[in-house]
Amino acid sequence: MRLPVIVALLTLLVLPGSHAAELFSEDDLATARELRDRALSRDGGFDVVEDLTTRIGPRLAGSEADARAVAWAESLLTDLGFDRVWLEPVTFPTWSRGFERVRVTAPVEHNMEALAIGFSPATPVGGVEGEVVMFDDLAALQEAQAEDVSGRIVFIRNRMSRARDGSGYGPAVQARARGAIVAAELGAVGVIIRSIGTSTNRFAHTGGMRFDVGQRRLPAAAISNPDADQLERLIALGEPVRLHMEIDAQKTEAYTSHNVIAEITGANYPEKIVALGAHLDSWDVGTGALDDGAGIAIITEAGRLILDLDQRPDRSIHLIFFAAEEIGLWGGRAWAEAHHKNFENLQLGAESDFGAGPIYEIGARVVDAAWPVIEAIQRELEPLGIALGSRRASGGPDFLPSLPHGLAVVDLRQDGTTYFDYHHTENDTLDKIDPQELAQNAAAYAVLAWLAAQSPIDFGSGPELLEQERER
Amino acid sequence: MRLPVIVALLTLLVLPGSHAAELFSEDDLATARELRDRALSRDGGFDVVEDLTTRIGPRLAGSEADARAVAWAESLLTDLGFDRVWLEPVTFPTWSRGFERVRVTAPVEHNMEALAIGFSPATPVGGVEGEVVMFDDLAALQEAQAEDVSGRIVFIRNRMSRARDGSGYGPAVQARARGAIVAAELGAVGVIIRSIGTSTNRFAHTGGMRFDVGQRRLPAAAISNPDADQLERLIALGEPVRLHMEIDAQKTEAYTSHNVIAEITGANYPEKIVALGAHLDSWDVGTGALDDGAGIAIITEAGRLILDLDQRPDRSIHLIFFAAEEIGLWGGRAWAEAHHKNFENLQLGAESDFGAGPIYEIGARVVDAAWPVIEAIQRELEPLGIALGSRRASGGPDFLPSLPHGLAVVDLRQDGTTYFDYHHTENDTLDKIDPQELAQNAAAYAVLAWLAAQSPIDFGSGPELLEQERER
Repeated sequence: MRLPVIVALLTLLVLPGSHAAELFSEDDLATARELRDRALSRDGGFDVVEDLTTRIGPRLAGSEADARAVAWAESLLTDLGFDRVWLEPVTFPTWSRGFERVRVTAPVEHNMEALAIGFSPATPVGGVEGEVVMFDDLAALQEAQAEDVSGRIVFIRNRMSRARDGSGYGPAVQARARGAIVAAELGAVGVIIRSIGTSTNRFAHTGGMRFDVGQRRLPAAAISNPDADQLERLIALGEPVRLHMEIDAQKTEAYTSHNVIAEITGANYPEKIVALGAHLDSWDVGTGALDDGAGIAIITEAGRLILDLDQRPDRSIHLIFFAAEEIGLWGGRAWAEAHHKNFENLQLGAESDFGAGPIYEIGARVVDAAWPVIEAIQRELEPLGIALGSRRASGGPDFLPSLPHGLAVVDLRQDGTTYFDYHHTENDTLDKIDPQELAQNAAAYAVLAWLAAQSPIDFGSGPELLEQERER
Repeated sequence: MRLPVIVALLTLLVLPGSHAAELFSEDDLATARELRDRALSRDGGFDVVEDLTTRIGPRLAGSEADARAVAWAESLLTDLGFDRVWLEPVTFPTWSRGFERVRVTAPVEHNMEALAIGFSPATPVGGVEGEVVMFDDLAALQEAQAEDVSGRIVFIRNRMSRARDGSGYGPAVQARARGAIVAAELGAVGVIIRSIGTSTNRFAHTGGMRFDVGQRRLPAAAISNPDADQLERLIALGEPVRLHMEIDAQKTEAYTSHNVIAEITGANYPEKIVALGAHLDSWDVGTGALDDGAGIAIITEAGRLILDLDQRPDRSIHLIFFAAEEIGLWGGRAWAEAHHKNFENLQLGAESDFGAGPIYEIGARVVDAAWPVIEAIQRELEPLGIALGSRRASGGPDFLPSLPHGLAVVDLRQDGTTYFDYHHTENDTLDKIDPQELAQNAAAYAVLAWLAAQSPIDFGSGPELLEQERER
């Protein structure tokens, strides 16, 4: 949403809802509106993501840049005047890209834009070559006979569809997550997938595989969507199509990075926590501007807007810059492991990790008694164009490991129509972020964090929420 | 323009203009309208550019694919039933890309998306490194002192502006054409330019340099626009910024390719020629779909529409697939050299080489007496959304060498608003072509070729046109 639209909507808001007045004090509501207006007059933390993507750039978990990013974050949050800033260790296996080269060798030579999929093994030096066998999707590959696949290079051609909520990603990404494992069982020598992205620009889309420790998997790469089109056209010519692929990549067993956490200490209930998250790591090919520099910017901006108030909130607010999200939610896992015994004090978790598009809806997983508080918060978000959504929410990827422990979570759902044009590609760069859209996001997170911290009741994280869900 | 719009415009056309009726017979006008309508009901030769970009792919002049493209073209045009198909030799120096790597080494490491500029020399093995010195444009570099440039890597940051007629290209491209020569005189060790393109996608834009034989020039590369932004931000941090660049490239002194020419032999004046052109070669990084597979498709479609008529036109129509346009207009030069003595028989030249966007205007360089014929042709193009333009025209790049010899030329000016988003990048692939827009182009070329071949008067190519221009 553009600022003039937001301003027009603000003008329409003459009176606050009467329900909100019952739950929150007039002072707290006035502060929420002040936060919202101030956020909209600024750039949403664009300076933060600009600095991160310029000084650090790509920051694959476990790389040299990971450590520089953690130091950058600690320094930034300390300089901004948060009451406490600390690091919590996160240990994970790493993977690093050497290079990837994929080319058609028959019936004609054609060089493909390709990226190895994260945790792809290297090919033998000199690469592998084989005839291509094409499948519509992972399910079709799963039904294939070994004799049709053995010794060949599997090509999975499924296309991701564009949607505001990004719902095209889940079905399509199965090819990336599991293709190299399934194809290994069938005796293939390599796997190529159409990129799991919506762009027709010639960028390949990387991302992780999903495998068990020690499970055999093949060298695997994604090719750009125009190259996948070209491969389909070459196959349609009717002659055998052969591919050569060479991948160089390394992995290590364990690297220790850190979640970086900053606290605005609550004035009345310092032990109770509203947790805003984003992840600090990125894939190695773009500069991680949309994924997830934007999230880092949004929650940092929300935090410093609240820091600038004349008062501290009732509860504490934590910003969590998660480590190693991209390669397996390791920061989220470590945080859940370290904190789940304290979830009764966690008011909520909410992560910004879907680019910089405007937020259009709020959803939440809270106990029944707290839902009216979410409704009251939504009324303060309404002028930002944010509607009330469902009572299903995930909180974002890094809070997924906390869901089984009953963490109450809020989703501020962003318009992701164009997100998968850039996500996990070389093209995820700063110019793809609109500061006005970033400001709308920061306004929403500031209002959410503030009102959640001032809420008359807790959201029920931990045993209470789990018990209520069991009873439903 | 979309087909529904075109159809709506056609419906509005109730009566032909009275002037047209005076110049062309009703039969010829009816045939022109039949060509136009049939072209709009088809896909503009999309099958041609699909086959070219699939079977041949990138086809840099002088490469192995150049020879394959020439054979493909000869075979295609023969199979389509043109009355004559032949090759004319074109000899030129060649250049081929090995690789290019450009990265910032200080104050932080950052890998750039880069493409060597055509005819860039290779760097020494291991590359060159130097502090970056930034200039606003070529003119600023030309005014620089050697002491500020010597031993450094020059970065020219000028930005190309977007325009329907592509007029942003000329001013910006000076940096690419001359930067490496000017910087060599000042003692620099390498040159980097912001890509001469309008996209914010992370593709570098290649293209040629302009230099005299034996003139010293530096290794030079273009970086993508997001990388140029990043470089400017790094420079703005205030610390010295250092770049490392390594380029591998080869050149040869002479290769002989061919212009491929197909003729529809005129029924009454077979020696008089309407020449439609496009270039068969492309840069080496995309598949040359927009540049200039689209042009090949458009003129081929126009030609086969006319071939399918029950009659041959009065004059002959030639399709010329020019060789080696990208690296120095060598096909156009060879054609001018071979044919300029016969220009009195050349009715006109018109090349399609500006992508696949819709044509919005016709302009022409013809003798005064023939301008009413151009006006009459425009009236038949009006339903396609094509307005009457000026009496200045170039005929397209491959006819430029023919202009000093007085060739009459027509420009069918295409909307190039997005052309420079793709031009000379890896992203110039088939999916960027809209078959409906291609069909509008083919309709216009078919109408132009037919009516020019049936014109009651010649357009005055050769001495007559030159003399008239001298007298003005």
